[in-house]
Amino acid sequence: MIRVALCGMGYWGRNLFRVLSSNPGIELAAVVDPKPELADKLRQSHPQIVVHADASAVMADPTIDAVVIATPVSSHYDLARAALDARKHVMVEKPMCASSAEASDLVARAEAYGLTLMVDHTFLFHPAVLKLADLVHSGALGHVSYFDSQRINLGLFQPDVNVLWDLAPHDLSILDFLFGIEPVDVEATGYCHVNQGSPDISYLTLHYPNSMVAHLNLSWMSPVKLRRVAIGGSEQMVVWDDLNRDEPLKIYDSGITFHSKQERDLILPNYRIGSVSSPRLATSEPLVDVIEHFRQSITKQVTCKTDGRLGLRVVRTLERAQAALDLSLRRVRGFMPVSINAVAAE
Amino acid sequence: MIRVALCGMGYWGRNLFRVLSSNPGIELAAVVDPKPELADKLRQSHPQIVVHADASAVMADPTIDAVVIATPVSSHYDLARAALDARKHVMVEKPMCASSAEASDLVARAEAYGLTLMVDHTFLFHPAVLKLADLVHSGALGHVSYFDSQRINLGLFQPDVNVLWDLAPHDLSILDFLFGIEPVDVEATGYCHVNQGSPDISYLTLHYPNSMVAHLNLSWMSPVKLRRVAIGGSEQMVVWDDLNRDEPLKIYDSGITFHSKQERDLILPNYRIGSVSSPRLATSEPLVDVIEHFRQSITKQVTCKTDGRLGLRVVRTLERAQAALDLSLRRVRGFMPVSINAVAAE
Amino acid sequence: MIRVALCGMGYWGRNLFRVLSSNPGIELAAVVDPKPELADKLRQSHPQIVVHADASAVMADPTIDAVVIATPVSSHYDLARAALDARKHVMVEKPMCASSAEASDLVARAEAYGLTLMVDHTFLFHPAVLKLADLVHSGALGHVSYFDSQRINLGLFQPDVNVLWDLAPHDLSILDFLFGIEPVDVEATGYCHVNQGSPDISYLTLHYPNSMVAHLNLSWMSPVKLRRVAIGGSEQMVVWDDLNRDEPLKIYDSGITFHSKQERDLILPNYRIGSVSSPRLATSEPLVDVIEHFRQSITKQVTCKTDGRLGLRVVRTLERAQAALDLSLRRVRGFMPVSINAVAAE
Amino acid sequence: MIRVALCGMGYWGRNLFRVLSSNPGIELAAVVDPKPELADKLRQSHPQIVVHADASAVMADPTIDAVVIATPVSSHYDLARAALDARKHVMVEKPMCASSAEASDLVARAEAYGLTLMVDHTFLFHPAVLKLADLVHSGALGHVSYFDSQRINLGLFQPDVNVLWDLAPHDLSILDFLFGIEPVDVEATGYCHVNQGSPDISYLTLHYPNSMVAHLNLSWMSPVKLRRVAIGGSEQMVVWDDLNRDEPLKIYDSGITFHSKQERDLILPNYRIGSVSSPRLATSEPLVDVIEHFRQSITKQVTCKTDGRLGLRVVRTLERAQAALDLSLRRVRGFMPVSINAVAAE
Repeated sequence: MIRVALCGMGYWGRNLFRVLSSNPGIELAAVVDPKPELADKLRQSHPQIVVHADASAVMADPTIDAVVIATPVSSHYDLARAALDARKHVMVEKPMCASSAEASDLVARAEAYGLTLMVDHTFLFHPAVLKLADLVHSGALGHVSYFDSQRINLGLFQPDVNVLWDLAPHDLSILDFLFGIEPVDVEATGYCHVNQGSPDISYLTLHYPNSMVAHLNLSWMSPVKLRRVAIGGSEQMVVWDDLNRDEPLKIYDSGITFHSKQERDLILPNYRIGSVSSPRLATSEPLVDVIEHFRQSITKQVTCKTDGRLGLRVVRTLERAQAALDLSLRRVRGFMPVSINAVAAE
Repeated sequence: MIRVALCGMGYWGRNLFRVLSSNPGIELAAVVDPKPELADKLRQSHPQIVVHADASAVMADPTIDAVVIATPVSSHYDLARAALDARKHVMVEKPMCASSAEASDLVARAEAYGLTLMVDHTFLFHPAVLKLADLVHSGALGHVSYFDSQRINLGLFQPDVNVLWDLAPHDLSILDFLFGIEPVDVEATGYCHVNQGSPDISYLTLHYPNSMVAHLNLSWMSPVKLRRVAIGGSEQMVVWDDLNRDEPLKIYDSGITFHSKQERDLILPNYRIGSVSSPRLATSEPLVDVIEHFRQSITKQVTCKTDGRLGLRVVRTLERAQAALDLSLRRVRGFMPVSINAVAAE
Repeated sequence: MIRVALCGMGYWGRNLFRVLSSNPGIELAAVVDPKPELADKLRQSHPQIVVHADASAVMADPTIDAVVIATPVSSHYDLARAALDARKHVMVEKPMCASSAEASDLVARAEAYGLTLMVDHTFLFHPAVLKLADLVHSGALGHVSYFDSQRINLGLFQPDVNVLWDLAPHDLSILDFLFGIEPVDVEATGYCHVNQGSPDISYLTLHYPNSMVAHLNLSWMSPVKLRRVAIGGSEQMVVWDDLNRDEPLKIYDSGITFHSKQERDLILPNYRIGSVSSPRLATSEPLVDVIEHFRQSITKQVTCKTDGRLGLRVVRTLERAQAALDLSLRRVRGFMPVSINAVAAE
Repeated sequence: MIRVALCGMGYWGRNLFRVLSSNPGIELAAVVDPKPELADKLRQSHPQIVVHADASAVMADPTIDAVVIATPVSSHYDLARAALDARKHVMVEKPMCASSAEASDLVARAEAYGLTLMVDHTFLFHPAVLKLADLVHSGALGHVSYFDSQRINLGLFQPDVNVLWDLAPHDLSILDFLFGIEPVDVEATGYCHVNQGSPDISYLTLHYPNSMVAHLNLSWMSPVKLRRVAIGGSEQMVVWDDLNRDEPLKIYDSGITFHSKQERDLILPNYRIGSVSSPRLATSEPLVDVIEHFRQSITKQVTCKTDGRLGLRVVRTLERAQAALDLSLRRVRGFMPVSINAVAAE
């Protein structure tokens, strides 16, 4: 039985609470959250769980084996570092940290101490992503030439992240999981409609060394919600629409091959349009599998597939995208008419 | 009765042929196309139309009032210039020219001679675009914060244009028509999967001085065809799906307004989600209206709404995008591993 | 505070349990269910609720004001009669009883005793049905000529009801609510693929005295689930697709009017095809409103809108449909080849 | 080269004209239509085709090998009989005749004379129906338990057919083609909203000796057009939505098998829900194949698959349905309040 403390009872923290409580190999022993009314409510409904207003008591408690961190991103590093230094296994929400320096430091500590450091990239346990991985890794798609994601909705406008850090981790972790390589170049632009300096729309283009391009269209400004990823290969193309309940994944047995046309010095495409199929996916809740995977990583039954190194790679790409985005925002600002700049500066 | 010569009987030229033939105020007097089998066929089926292998005879014929040019882009300038210099009205396919220098020169000539110079941006006569213009110009959408277009399909890989010059003119002309301003900054990137130097995927981001951002996702590499434009305003949002036969235009009576949250120095959004409506659109064929508009522009019954100046603005933005795209492609190439570069250079 | 006993903790009973527990004007005092493991579990999690294996103790308890009955249909009458005779208010699941004789008897008792007798036709509290009622009662649809329902899925094959008694109550209660009249004729047919004598597919046609026809296509045999009701009026048509999350209700501003064509002695239709709109519906849970309505009916704050008389009318139509269905099944059996009959009789 | 005369240049006749003209093995030699303006127009555009106001000259012309009849249903018999008696092959539009007596007579004559008598049930040459036939005949669907069709739209209200004779032939011919058996019982009801005695909505239920039930929902009263056929088998289910351009046919690898539950004397279903696939269909125009099949039937290269016997079976079922429908309409009329009957009788 692994004794776990949960830090943070926000929206996602409450989901973690439910799933941690129902895993038979885990004892949810403590919860850390500063809201007094929550503490009262929890003490009544779950008297066996200790509730703390801050994390120090948890770190000092030698009976706690592992800490799950679901607090704002800016606090991830301090909490995870304290937990690792207290020799506790750690699972931290995505994005792992606010910088790659922080993330590298955590990875180094976890490896030095021989502890599990896992990042909750839940989508990598989603049945649709597992099926995408099958399709990519088995070669069924052929050579993949593009990955195109639309992830748009009305956003929550969280205080400590912008749309890039909120939404891109989903796609970046999926790209890492599917292809196992980092981009050679990261381009980004966007727009701050609401809070100056904090984009609410962002477009990323990632160039990969295997002739693949990935594009992410991220927005908090759309009343129409879209969650659509298209992956194009030489043999098949697949579209994942996460909001389509009946047929979330469609595999198009269509592809493009190429032949050169000597006389015009051109390469021309051959199109093949075939049938469409939509595989039946498992209906398991991914977060249940995340928590069980964390438990089995601690007990060394499995190798952690969303470990700190993956989390670090995601943060590193976010940093590169943020740098490109900053450049673009500054450049565009310079082109703007004076009146707009004056208004924006106020 | 306006006597018209049509240059080019490719895919679009044949549509123009059909529509020019059926306009009661137009006499289609001549066709220019070098394919001999076409000439034979036309002479049999339409003996009243003269067929030429090249355009010189048409330019020299004083009974021809106007020339419609539907040839490859690289030939637009020479043909249009010759026609204008021969004091003929001109309608040219989009994109208007291969460069803004060419386009400017044509505009200057047409204005000096007092002739109609029209560009066939057919979409500006499409019932859905006319409805979009109503919504924008009437203020029904409120302040527009973004324009997001996906225009992807399996492409034709034309010899003298890349995906940017093939697909972006649609959105650029619509943006010009709806908002009447040019972007202050144009960002572009893309990928050449098939022919080096000729992108088959391209992403454009256009920044406008009125706090609007436009994004175009253009691709020739997708077996799934999408033609989807979303425009987000403070009062309403509208999505145009050109492939949805039943409800191509959906107006979401949803919007975002903002309030500042003093204590946190943040501006927070208020969401309003309302009903959705899909207006009944006219079922007229846009090209029929294009041709009639050309005729009425010549007879000075209307002011040409897709004149050379609009065509020039579209070409100017294409040039800026192409420059940004070239920079991006070169930059990414520099980051690529040696082996990939070597392969690509072969 | 109304003290309520709940009889039956099956699938729907558990929903009632949750909603009864959270209504601040109701005290869920007792639960009746024969499953011992359920009793144990409830006593632990909700020590303040008394659990009984049968209903006699509840009926005898003078502190219980009202009984909610969510047991198999065959037991509805005995339980509801006992509760009414014990001077308790009653809410019973749909269909109200197994026969109209039973239902009439309950109505008579409730009226004699001055008690609330409500049937849980939950759909009549559904935001989409409330909107349909607005459209019908306001005259927005014009004269309604047809009501067409498809209610098909893979069925549960319950032991004591067939597909007619399982699915038709939804549509019959909606028809009663929208139009307030009973059909003058009821036709029904169907098929028993699984259990002889218990149809798993049934088609109903109901003729109404106001020139309206209603058709129900009910099936337990379809892997594809459909929940689609179309109502056609002279002014507008409305389609309710209960499985469409984004736009469950679509109002077509289209209609048919008629003119006579003297010379041919024919009446010809004029079609008008207009825009489509999808109103924003409330997101409240209908069952919460059902329970609150039951409470307010007891306290005489409202008149019960799904009272025993409505429940009786639904059962009466079910009986007429069942009679027609029996006739059809017998008739078809007579036409079948001998071998099939022999097989079926085994 | 087969010399063909075409009788009738209405909506469908013009399609036949186009396809007959372009078949290289057919010479469209004559057209029969009483409209003078049509004759003038045809003589100008197609001087090689003789145009007659009535069919007598065609029947008397020994150089005509075959007659294609696309006139109103009431005239099919006289025209087809005259053509057969003149020893010409015949293709007649669906429904074949106005009665089974007429249809039988034509079959007998064609067989006596050794002539091809074909009915233009175009759908039996439709790629989707050919695929359905593959699925049924190969056993891929398993035992088929139901066929459910919705065929609704705003109707044309033709003078000499009601909705049953207009729309049911599609499904009846498909049922005949897929299953090769006639129903043992035919139930029908409907409603006459527009012209008394001529239903504009009709519901058919067909019982087949192989434990299959078919249901047709036919309507001329719906602004929303539906063309949806679902076929449920023990192994797979297939849904054909003829208006879905991208995926008209969806095959659900889902089925129902049954096991008996001894203790309750019940048979219970086992559900299997699998993947969905949408095969790529050919994009040929069915009518082109119809005409070529007619030609090859005449030249005895193929056996006619939509011969007079199939056409007769369809008409026979239509007659049975019409009889049932008449009974139902009369019965319902008897139940109607006096005032409604009085109004209807005026």
